[in-house]
Amino acid sequence: MSKRERISIGLMGLGVIGSGVARALLERVDAIAQQVGCPLILKRALDCDISKKESAELPDQMFTSDPNQLLHDPEIDIVIEVIGGDTHALAYIKEALSTGKHVVTANKEVIAKHGPELRSLAAENRVDIRHEASVGGGIPIINPLKQDLLANKISAIHAIINGTTNYIVTRMAAENIDFITVLKQAQELGYAEANPANDVEGVDAVYKLAILATLAFRTEIHPEDIYREGISRLTSQDFRHAKELGYAIKLLAIAKEENHSVQVRVHPAFVPEGLLLAKVDGVFNAIEIEGDLTGKVVFYGRGAGPLPTSSAIVADVIQLAQSINLGLPPKPQPQPSQIKKITSISHIVTRYYMRLTTTDSPGVLAQIAKILGDHSISIASVIQKEADAQAQTAEIVIMTHPAQESAMQKALRETEALPVVKEIGNLIRVED
Amino acid sequence: MSKRERISIGLMGLGVIGSGVARALLERVDAIAQQVGCPLILKRALDCDISKKESAELPDQMFTSDPNQLLHDPEIDIVIEVIGGDTHALAYIKEALSTGKHVVTANKEVIAKHGPELRSLAAENRVDIRHEASVGGGIPIINPLKQDLLANKISAIHAIINGTTNYIVTRMAAENIDFITVLKQAQELGYAEANPANDVEGVDAVYKLAILATLAFRTEIHPEDIYREGISRLTSQDFRHAKELGYAIKLLAIAKEENHSVQVRVHPAFVPEGLLLAKVDGVFNAIEIEGDLTGKVVFYGRGAGPLPTSSAIVADVIQLAQSINLGLPPKPQPQPSQIKKITSISHIVTRYYMRLTTTDSPGVLAQIAKILGDHSISIASVIQKEADAQAQTAEIVIMTHPAQESAMQKALRETEALPVVKEIGNLIRVED
Repeated sequence: MSKRERISIGLMGLGVIGSGVARALLERVDAIAQQVGCPLILKRALDCDISKKESAELPDQMFTSDPNQLLHDPEIDIVIEVIGGDTHALAYIKEALSTGKHVVTANKEVIAKHGPELRSLAAENRVDIRHEASVGGGIPIINPLKQDLLANKISAIHAIINGTTNYIVTRMAAENIDFITVLKQAQELGYAEANPANDVEGVDAVYKLAILATLAFRTEIHPEDIYREGISRLTSQDFRHAKELGYAIKLLAIAKEENHSVQVRVHPAFVPEGLLLAKVDGVFNAIEIEGDLTGKVVFYGRGAGPLPTSSAIVADVIQLAQSINLGLPPKPQPQPSQIKKITSISHIVTRYYMRLTTTDSPGVLAQIAKILGDHSISIASVIQKEADAQAQTAEIVIMTHPAQESAMQKALRETEALPVVKEIGNLIRVED
Repeated sequence: MSKRERISIGLMGLGVIGSGVARALLERVDAIAQQVGCPLILKRALDCDISKKESAELPDQMFTSDPNQLLHDPEIDIVIEVIGGDTHALAYIKEALSTGKHVVTANKEVIAKHGPELRSLAAENRVDIRHEASVGGGIPIINPLKQDLLANKISAIHAIINGTTNYIVTRMAAENIDFITVLKQAQELGYAEANPANDVEGVDAVYKLAILATLAFRTEIHPEDIYREGISRLTSQDFRHAKELGYAIKLLAIAKEENHSVQVRVHPAFVPEGLLLAKVDGVFNAIEIEGDLTGKVVFYGRGAGPLPTSSAIVADVIQLAQSINLGLPPKPQPQPSQIKKITSISHIVTRYYMRLTTTDSPGVLAQIAKILGDHSISIASVIQKEADAQAQTAEIVIMTHPAQESAMQKALRETEALPVVKEIGNLIRVED
């Protein structure tokens, strides 16, 4: 077996994550060399922004702002990509794979959109592409799905995979404050970005769910297959009602396979407070996978930040380096084995929470109940409360039994058109 | 790359687990063949008890009661050992490795006691020994520790890794019933064995902790290094006090590294009810690992039973078979890199809950407080209640600040000797 004198690494992107990865590699150089069997050398670090050279505190000769210096250096065996986004990053990853370099990336957008293509390109060039950091930060989830759970037929994923939104809903639930106030504080604390749309509208969670569902169901799930709703419509009333009814509200990423069809959706959901997912608070993430053999298993931890992300990236790098040092070829990537149908959101069946403001007059509930009944939607419970004497309005909360989404949406439109209905406050799906 | 026509498996042990594994392999033969690249054939199944041939519902020619028919069959590539215990199982595993067969085992006792020796034997014979099922049933934990977390310096493990005891403490907490009553019901339900000592006295958890700590700290931790207390001394009073004070009581397996010394212990512990581990109920298991990069990650799921155990075993088998099919040699096993010191239980520092029954007379608390003070043990809170007027006794509950175990034990003996003290009800460590 060929033993190497050293294995060289190129790092692309020196933002918060990239600097963290560089530090992790440099700080534990001896421990890593022992695990790999030869030294791992961080040879070159790229950022187009020259000021990053200072902030990352790297030796001058290591830094470059020219991608070719890294991608076309024949000594570099492994490229770490932590630039993010899918413009430059995608081009660089392709170039690296094409020139026979292994790639480790944290880029959920690139993997969600181009995973199958990149895996094929890697296989053609007899190299590997790994992306444990793309979902769940430092929580091992990609490799467990690829390896440890592969005896299972997986039926469902329920995941809290966006720390920003979980921080916001946790504080809304605990403190009875509104979305905008918490969002602003989250921005001040660095938990939310200046432009928070990617997180609060569920885009980030969609990318991650696409990656998980593709692996779990051994089929290609694309971001555009996934139904998406963010958390910006949640109000403090919703959290108050949820609590009274025994639920937490979480932004869930859900994937289920039923009858060879996959439903994939990201939206706020009522989660019974007895379930472990209901107890995942703050910036923490949790991914629950249900397999036919293992039952429900949950992976929990910090889903973001430079240190957890470095944990996943450096582990991927070490495992690649171990194989390189032993002269082992990369294991073939699991190939999507089936094209599965995507279940349209209008065909899902679930329970619903519905909150609406009506005029405070007799017969209102009867009119709403009739519409629901006409659409075969059965009411599980009703709370009418908080009549506002001055405005002469009442708030009605309805929990339904399982109903089809298309029926619920029709009923909702008809309810909204009732003269006695002032406003549909919210409609939130329930995940038991 | 050499592709195989088939890969043959020998299965040793046809109890509940073995039958489950056989069924899992036979039922999903097509899916597995697709994942491996060639068919996996269950060629021979061994049990010394011939009646197992019937109950496992295997074809006649597959069954044998002669270990040599399996261990010396040159066609068999992988041996699955689910006999359990460390007499026959150990001998068979050694024989299998020596004759160049890969081994997959669920045997926590054998791995805990003989892991390093077996890994060396495997390496000598250029085969692999895998044991994902030895800890946590269907929860991926061994491979994540070996691979996904290997960039981390791990500082602590806190684990609920025995389903029987967690079932018992969960019911004791919820229903205010005593240990013996719950144990009997657990036995009737099949959650506890006829001879429950291995579970309730913490022996099973000790084996599992030895395996986890050996991997996490890259050193050899032996079962006899681990301090052990079971749950049989817990009473309904302890659970009532714990709840009032904001804690759950769990049988915890704990391993921590501080100053190049490792403390390893299995005992009941007060766990603050806000922590995820406090919410792990019933037969479920959870393993919390704390790494310097990833922070705390938790792995949760069913820790026992034929289906979850099959999930782990079959995944190990598939991964081995993938390598065999590609002609890849096994990756070198992580070798223990350091001999670390074991911290004696008398040197640990922790908080304590102490419950005692005293005479209901003035000055009692002062006497106890003086003893604690003499040993530099500071009291955090005291509850005195439930004076039994008839018996003229009082129950006192003391929570301490962090104190050294040796000091606490000395204070306990002196307290016990006080004429006013009728009985030390319990002393339970607190894990924050």
